[in-house]
Amino acid sequence: MNKLYLVTSESDCRHHSLASVIQMAAEGGVGMVQLREKNASTREFIQKGLLLKTLLKPFNIPLIINDRVDVALAVEAEGVHLGQSDMPVESARRLLPPNSIVGLSVESLEEVKEAENLPVDYLGVSPVFGTQTKTDTKIEWGLDGLQHIRQISKHRLVAIGGISITNAEEVLKAGADDLALVSAICGVPDPKLATAEFIKIIKEYAIS
Amino acid sequence: MNKLYLVTSESDCRHHSLASVIQMAAEGGVGMVQLREKNASTREFIQKGLLLKTLLKPFNIPLIINDRVDVALAVEAEGVHLGQSDMPVESARRLLPPNSIVGLSVESLEEVKEAENLPVDYLGVSPVFGTQTKTDTKIEWGLDGLQHIRQISKHRLVAIGGISITNAEEVLKAGADDLALVSAICGVPDPKLATAEFIKIIKEYAIS
Ligand code: NI
Repeated sequence: MNKLYLVTSESDCRHHSLASVIQMAAEGGVGMVQLREKNASTREFIQKGLLLKTLLKPFNIPLIINDRVDVALAVEAEGVHLGQSDMPVESARRLLPPNSIVGLSVESLEEVKEAENLPVDYLGVSPVFGTQTKTDTKIEWGLDGLQHIRQISKHRLVAIGGISITNAEEVLKAGADDLALVSAICGVPDPKLATAEFIKIIKEYAIS
Repeated sequence: MNKLYLVTSESDCRHHSLASVIQMAAEGGVGMVQLREKNASTREFIQKGLLLKTLLKPFNIPLIINDRVDVALAVEAEGVHLGQSDMPVESARRLLPPNSIVGLSVESLEEVKEAENLPVDYLGVSPVFGTQTKTDTKIEWGLDGLQHIRQISKHRLVAIGGISITNAEEVLKAGADDLALVSAICGVPDPKLATAEFIKIIKEYAIS
């Protein structure tokens, strides 16, 4: 089943509080949420994680913590998302409870190939399209790149970066299992409506 | 037994590499080492932690990781040092192996009082004297403050901030169990000699 994956931090939320965005996205049908806090203290990160965990629990939506295995353990999150400069996947897998979700960002074909033998639950194909959200990423995969990864990788693929209502179907057709969104949900006036619109595209694609 | 506690990050080491400083301090008789990396990626932090672990193992010197319980777990460090905006002490205690060392910085009397009921192995009395090493700390305890904490706290006290050869004995007399040093070891041409000089003061104090 294809899922919508909300990736967020407090600073991404323009119209509403982080808590409101999470609540509305959950009501709109989001399938997974990643909390990404780059400048928060450990304690703030944990406090936000606990808040999101409480909000998401009634919906049975998994909470993923970016980078920080300590925060994931402290808030009993369902998993972590790791970049290439975060903890190595094997170490994270060893420290987390069994059946935790471990995702890994890939930003080059070499990283995709290396990831084939890693115990990850998904690859974050990042970014699919150019975006201002992360300033430190260099290349963009495009639909071609995503198709190429689909051909060589056995892993579940989460597409992230510049995904919109207009290109979502193409991204799924190119081989993405899941669509990850930041500003398309966090930065809009109605996160619930935006979520529901993406869910509609995903469902229509699934039965097509 | 009073100990010398080296608190360090790569950027504190002016004359030598971090690895060289650690090696020389170990040879000089340092009793505990804390790795503090504020700007490193998780992966870099882990790599440095593993390096220090390897260097310290032959000396049986405990390695303490600042803030990051995930890094401590990944490198199998002997403990963590927590600030007031880091993971709460109880959470860290729960996530770390039994008998891990957990230290906590206190920067106000209120924090000292709160810490009485916390499962910590030591309090970091920070800073004892004004220092340029940490720019975000506001007050300095001074010898009076240290004496006052000694009267009201049952915990082991590690004094940190501005400790030098000149004031080390006074700091011990005021109630510090251990002396923590940053630049007095990291920033000098001969870290081994500097360590040995502080150890001499500690030993003379112990038998006085
Ligand atoms: Ni030298």
